[in-house]
Amino acid sequence: MARRYDSSTTTFSPEGRLHQVEYAIEAINNAGTCVGILAKDGIVMASERRITSGLLAPAKVSEKTYQLCKHAACNVAGLTADANILIDQARLRAGRYQYQYQEPIPVEQLVEYVCNYKQFYTQRGGLRPFGVAFLFAGYDEHHGFQLYQSDPSGNYSGWKATVIGANNQAGKSLLKTEYKTGEEAEESIPDLQEALKLAVKVLNKTMDGTTSAAAAEKMELYTMSMEDGECAHNILNKVEAQKVIDAVEAESASAGDS
Amino acid sequence: MARRYDSSTTTFSPEGRLHQVEYAIEAINNAGTCVGILAKDGIVMASERRITSGLLAPAKVSEKTYQLCKHAACNVAGLTADANILIDQARLRAGRYQYQYQEPIPVEQLVEYVCNYKQFYTQRGGLRPFGVAFLFAGYDEHHGFQLYQSDPSGNYSGWKATVIGANNQAGKSLLKTEYKTGEEAEESIPDLQEALKLAVKVLNKTMDGTTSAAAAEKMELYTMSMEDGECAHNILNKVEAQKVIDAVEAESASAGDS
Amino acid sequence: MARRYDSSTTTFSPEGRLHQVEYAIEAINNAGTCVGILAKDGIVMASERRITSGLLAPAKVSEKTYQLCKHAACNVAGLTADANILIDQARLRAGRYQYQYQEPIPVEQLVEYVCNYKQFYTQRGGLRPFGVAFLFAGYDEHHGFQLYQSDPSGNYSGWKATVIGANNQAGKSLLKTEYKTGEEAEESIPDLQEALKLAVKVLNKTMDGTTSAAAAEKMELYTMSMEDGECAHNILNKVEAQKVIDAVEAESASAGDS
Amino acid sequence: MARRYDSSTTTFSPEGRLHQVEYAIEAINNAGTCVGILAKDGIVMASERRITSGLLAPAKVSEKTYQLCKHAACNVAGLTADANILIDQARLRAGRYQYQYQEPIPVEQLVEYVCNYKQFYTQRGGLRPFGVAFLFAGYDEHHGFQLYQSDPSGNYSGWKATVIGANNQAGKSLLKTEYKTGEEAEESIPDLQEALKLAVKVLNKTMDGTTSAAAAEKMELYTMSMEDGECAHNILNKVEAQKVIDAVEAESASAGDS
Amino acid sequence: MARRYDSSTTTFSPEGRLHQVEYAIEAINNAGTCVGILAKDGIVMASERRITSGLLAPAKVSEKTYQLCKHAACNVAGLTADANILIDQARLRAGRYQYQYQEPIPVEQLVEYVCNYKQFYTQRGGLRPFGVAFLFAGYDEHHGFQLYQSDPSGNYSGWKATVIGANNQAGKSLLKTEYKTGEEAEESIPDLQEALKLAVKVLNKTMDGTTSAAAAEKMELYTMSMEDGECAHNILNKVEAQKVIDAVEAESASAGDS
Amino acid sequence: MARRYDSSTTTFSPEGRLHQVEYAIEAINNAGTCVGILAKDGIVMASERRITSGLLAPAKVSEKTYQLCKHAACNVAGLTADANILIDQARLRAGRYQYQYQEPIPVEQLVEYVCNYKQFYTQRGGLRPFGVAFLFAGYDEHHGFQLYQSDPSGNYSGWKATVIGANNQAGKSLLKTEYKTGEEAEESIPDLQEALKLAVKVLNKTMDGTTSAAAAEKMELYTMSMEDGECAHNILNKVEAQKVIDAVEAESASAGDS
Amino acid sequence: MARRYDSSTTTFSPEGRLHQVEYAIEAINNAGTCVGILAKDGIVMASERRITSGLLAPAKVSEKTYQLCKHAACNVAGLTADANILIDQARLRAGRYQYQYQEPIPVEQLVEYVCNYKQFYTQRGGLRPFGVAFLFAGYDEHHGFQLYQSDPSGNYSGWKATVIGANNQAGKSLLKTEYKTGEEAEESIPDLQEALKLAVKVLNKTMDGTTSAAAAEKMELYTMSMEDGECAHNILNKVEAQKVIDAVEAESASAGDS
Repeated sequence: MARRYDSSTTTFSPEGRLHQVEYAIEAINNAGTCVGILAKDGIVMASERRITSGLLAPAKVSEKTYQLCKHAACNVAGLTADANILIDQARLRAGRYQYQYQEPIPVEQLVEYVCNYKQFYTQRGGLRPFGVAFLFAGYDEHHGFQLYQSDPSGNYSGWKATVIGANNQAGKSLLKTEYKTGEEAEESIPDLQEALKLAVKVLNKTMDGTTSAAAAEKMELYTMSMEDGECAHNILNKVEAQKVIDAVEAESASAGDS
Repeated sequence: MARRYDSSTTTFSPEGRLHQVEYAIEAINNAGTCVGILAKDGIVMASERRITSGLLAPAKVSEKTYQLCKHAACNVAGLTADANILIDQARLRAGRYQYQYQEPIPVEQLVEYVCNYKQFYTQRGGLRPFGVAFLFAGYDEHHGFQLYQSDPSGNYSGWKATVIGANNQAGKSLLKTEYKTGEEAEESIPDLQEALKLAVKVLNKTMDGTTSAAAAEKMELYTMSMEDGECAHNILNKVEAQKVIDAVEAESASAGDS
Repeated sequence: MARRYDSSTTTFSPEGRLHQVEYAIEAINNAGTCVGILAKDGIVMASERRITSGLLAPAKVSEKTYQLCKHAACNVAGLTADANILIDQARLRAGRYQYQYQEPIPVEQLVEYVCNYKQFYTQRGGLRPFGVAFLFAGYDEHHGFQLYQSDPSGNYSGWKATVIGANNQAGKSLLKTEYKTGEEAEESIPDLQEALKLAVKVLNKTMDGTTSAAAAEKMELYTMSMEDGECAHNILNKVEAQKVIDAVEAESASAGDS
Repeated sequence: MARRYDSSTTTFSPEGRLHQVEYAIEAINNAGTCVGILAKDGIVMASERRITSGLLAPAKVSEKTYQLCKHAACNVAGLTADANILIDQARLRAGRYQYQYQEPIPVEQLVEYVCNYKQFYTQRGGLRPFGVAFLFAGYDEHHGFQLYQSDPSGNYSGWKATVIGANNQAGKSLLKTEYKTGEEAEESIPDLQEALKLAVKVLNKTMDGTTSAAAAEKMELYTMSMEDGECAHNILNKVEAQKVIDAVEAESASAGDS
Repeated sequence: MARRYDSSTTTFSPEGRLHQVEYAIEAINNAGTCVGILAKDGIVMASERRITSGLLAPAKVSEKTYQLCKHAACNVAGLTADANILIDQARLRAGRYQYQYQEPIPVEQLVEYVCNYKQFYTQRGGLRPFGVAFLFAGYDEHHGFQLYQSDPSGNYSGWKATVIGANNQAGKSLLKTEYKTGEEAEESIPDLQEALKLAVKVLNKTMDGTTSAAAAEKMELYTMSMEDGECAHNILNKVEAQKVIDAVEAESASAGDS
Repeated sequence: MARRYDSSTTTFSPEGRLHQVEYAIEAINNAGTCVGILAKDGIVMASERRITSGLLAPAKVSEKTYQLCKHAACNVAGLTADANILIDQARLRAGRYQYQYQEPIPVEQLVEYVCNYKQFYTQRGGLRPFGVAFLFAGYDEHHGFQLYQSDPSGNYSGWKATVIGANNQAGKSLLKTEYKTGEEAEESIPDLQEALKLAVKVLNKTMDGTTSAAAAEKMELYTMSMEDGECAHNILNKVEAQKVIDAVEAESASAGDS
Repeated sequence: MARRYDSSTTTFSPEGRLHQVEYAIEAINNAGTCVGILAKDGIVMASERRITSGLLAPAKVSEKTYQLCKHAACNVAGLTADANILIDQARLRAGRYQYQYQEPIPVEQLVEYVCNYKQFYTQRGGLRPFGVAFLFAGYDEHHGFQLYQSDPSGNYSGWKATVIGANNQAGKSLLKTEYKTGEEAEESIPDLQEALKLAVKVLNKTMDGTTSAAAAEKMELYTMSMEDGECAHNILNKVEAQKVIDAVEAESASAGDS
């Protein structure tokens, strides 16, 4: 019977659920996976490139990673057309804040702005929710490196390491095992290189049937770090990416040996 | 037959009920529990932290408690994305009042503003009610410490001690037994420490299957008190929280003994 | 078949009825009872307090009685959240009139303003009627003390004594017996004390299963009178209220004796 | 099948009918009857008072008759809340005309304004027709005394004598017999006293089961006449009304005798 | 199946028809008949008066004929309330044109303005077509006397002689026989007197069961002619009308004789 | 099943079709035929006059041909009321262009403006497409004489010769045979006289059951040509038209002979 | 069951799909094919001309290729009327950018602008998606020659070679075989002449049953190249096009030989 409540955004079902939002989340669970990992000295985001036709032009800047301002970037899972609208909003907001206050927008404030924008589309008739989830990576002086995840409902939360998109449950359970958490683990937080390898491991698990030989084309690896007091955005090129992938393979092979 | 009236906010059912509002309340009854207790020398709010993955980044400020202005804060049960919108409205309203009249907004006036905002969303087509309930804690010179509770319909009421969210009925009946009320009880109103312990007891009851060892992570304890004529907001850290939890356990063990 | 016409405010049923308005009235018939009685020297309004948990904070000003301006007040039956909107409108209107014409707004004009506001919500699509009925008590120099009743349709009427809310039929028939009307009765109109007792009698009848011992907490008694040329609003405190209730009980006991 | 077209104001049924307007007219056919009669020296309007509880406060001015400006008044059958909106519009219009042109608005122009306002509500989606019919009585120098009737569709027509509300067919057929029309009848047009008696006769017929003894309370009798070049509005008080009623009874008794 | 397309103005049926417009036309086919005839020296419009109760006040100006400006008038078939709105628009338009260009508006331009206004109501959701058809009679220096007919769709067309309203087919076929057309007929176009008689003949045919004795009350006869370079509007009084009717009867009697 | 998608303009059917637009085109396929032919020295447009009652007033200017500006005109098939709106828009646009740039608007730009206006009505809810197709004839210095055809979807295309309205398929296939195309045919393009005869032939074919004797009344023949550097619009009068028709008949008779 | 979600743009189906967007894409899959190929020294776009009646006037500029600004052009598959709106928007945007910044708009920015415009129509009620797909060819100094493809959802992507419209899958698989990609292929990228021949080959495959003799009329071949530092747009005339087609035929014949 609950089906009666699912065709309109603006109504609750008798169990207090918003079906349209849940369906939009479903759209994302079919999209390419994105992994985000907070490292000691930066943030790693890795994402699956689904369409890998040789006829595709190489992306001018990047394919799945969008820089929002000097100190923030995001990865996208879901409908790209919807994401473009939100990314434009985020860039505008960050630019205006910088202009108005002459200092960079705090990362969480930028994330919340985008999420409030999303929430608006879940509460009014004649609109559908945005079919897109984000990983936000950012740095500010208040809280250092930060990693956020948001979904179509407008909810967001801060994470040390997380996965969105297809097979995110499998990815998350791998992270739980491999990423050290808890108080005793403070000093064992991975550095960027370790985080990169961990991210590739997670993608290897969520992307089924991938022969590792082709992997460098199917993954986009991104790191954010501090260089000379500036936030440095770096998308690994094919050679760098392959090196990480090979290292992961070598490790798992030797692990398999032992 | 009444089902025909439940898909649209703006219509009454033949029995004079607004189903959409009731469904939104249902959404809250599945959300994490929040307890609020008025103490002699302040207010205690305690809330359940539902998602406790080790991968979650520690909240920058707090997770379930939002300061609205110098002299008011709130706890949230329900859809966080909806709550953000209302909290923004409340902060704006409090700031504007302070600016316009050069004095802090009376607490009830702030609560009523938020509730009128909610009511708007229950009376018009093309909108859904906000799926969120609040506990408001505040202090003003007219009425001292005050504790309010509001629901998606826009109703609010002042309480000495109350519970919202999952299992709130069980929590309320515990409060009825443990919180002294009535005229003869004026002097027996708990102080902040006693109120904290009572709040933990209530949460212990509403959160089923909790082993008390893990409890400090699963609860957020907040106190509001007056220090040097200023309203002091305090979220207990892990050690402080654990101390309260241990005290409660010790008491109940000795009570079980006797 | 008439059921087809009841889900939308803006349509008449074939018999010329507006079902949504009737359902909203239904909502009020389940709400706490309010009694209003015009006395020789003022007006009495008495209302049932439904929720009497000891955990409820005592109302800051009053619970069921709202002062609208210096010379008018109202009692509310129905959805409190809806009532708040209308009360805000009434207060604004009264204040603006006072400011514009430098004299208090005539009571009926204030009542009609609120009722026109209500009517608007019964004639347009995408809106639901306000689920609230009012008793208005007021004084002006044109017509002295006046008592009005309004319902969700926007209708209002002036009364000497009336009841709204649950069991209002039973209450009204008691009033018909006890309140003297007709020309010969002019001089037998009750004074405030007699009116208070009559109001308590009516509430005793409409609130079923009430043990009179607890009654002072369950009733809010209000009087409006003229003192020094000013309109005096008075909500009876617990002691005063209990005195009236005891007097009523004594009378009925002696009546039962005789 | 025609039922499919009746839930929306803005559509014609295949037979070219507007069902919503017809249902609104139905609402009026259940309302209290109003009679209007053009006399030689003025106009008589008489209306049934349906609710005659002794607890009702006597109307401040009148109950069923509303003065619109110095030279026009109206009687209302139907939803009072709807009527208030239209009466406010009419008063505004009359006042603005007077202010703008420094002369009273012609009666028909005032009537047409109200009717155009009504028509608007029959042609647009999201609105329902006004559930109210009017008798308009007015005087201007162009056409002297005039009597108009309007219905929810926005139609209006001028009459020498007419009836609206419950049992209007019965009332009209009595008028046809008793009110002299045609050219030969010019000089036999009734004066105000005769018209009053005729109006009471009609009400006696349309109000079933009325014992004439109680009639003065159940009827509101109004006359418009010219005094000293000014339009005089007069609502008969209880004694005056009873006198007319008694006269009618005496006549009909003697008629019964003969 | 086509029934599915008829409840909304804004959709075509699969056969390319607009049902709502056709139903509005149906409304007109039940309305009183109007005849328009272009004469050598003017225009005749004759219309049926449906409601002929003796209690109706005589129309102040006319009942079915509305003057739009100095040089144009119209007859109405259908919903009078709808017609009033369009007539107001036409008068406004004519007045503004006169004011702006200091010359009378060409007749066809005025007709097209009203028709475009009608068309608007056939193409948008939330509106219904105007349920009214017009005969427009007008004179301008460009094209002399002109007669137009318009329907609810916003179509209009110029005619030498035409009929709208009930039984218009019967009326039109009589006109085809009696009104001389074609090139050879230029000199046999009727003058105003002949046209009046022809119009009465047509009405006699379309109004079934009419005894000719009562006819003068049931018909409104209007002529437009040029007098001293001015456009003269003339509504025949009862005596003049009866004379025309008698002449028609005499002719038909003698025709019956021969 | 596809029927579910046809009642609303704004939705695609699963096969990617817009049913409302197709139904509007259906409306046009029942309308009077229009033929357009590009000649060496101008353009010919010929259209069927459907309603040929002798009672119709002769059109003041023309019946089916509308001049849009000095250098453009159009023929209309479909709902005349809809066409009037679009023609007004076209005239406004042409006038404003002339005023702004001090040169005539290029023909294709004018056509595209009208078509974009049409497209708007196919993409939004609460609107229906315009039920009208056009033949546009125009001349500008960039491309000389041009002939365009547009349909309710807002599509348009340039043609050497084309037919819209009833039986347009039959008409087009006749044109394919008779109108010389291809490179070798450049010099055999008809002049205006030949084009007129061809147009009449096409109309003869699409209008079934027409006796050629009456044809001059049933056809409107229009030519556009250049005279003294000005664009000359010419609607053939009855005598001229009959001459063309007779010539066609003579030819076809002699062709029948041979 | 999923069918329930397909009639409204603004709702997700339970699987997270937007049916209306998918149906709009369906509309494009029936439209004429367009091929775009990035060459070493320019871009080739080739499109099928579906309607090839000899009666069609030769397109003034081109039929399927629209120049957007000095350095960008597009090919269209789908509803031409919808495309016109978007092309107007693109031209406006390019012109305004040029005016504001005094330099040509980057190609991707122009494409994204059009795509955001499209996205808007997929997220709001009362609108339908644009039923049109584009190939964009452009040159800017940042990224040289660029080829983009967009669909009704507002998605776009850069390609080295791609096909839209009917049989695009067949076309793409031919491209995969014939167009050299990968790193080793950098130097084997085709020049404009080779790209033209490849484009014709693809069209030959997607257009079924085409006799190559008629092909020059059924294809529109476009090249963009740099000449004297300016972007040169060139649509091949009939002779040039036939030469390319003949060359392709010759090759495939000799290939068939070998």
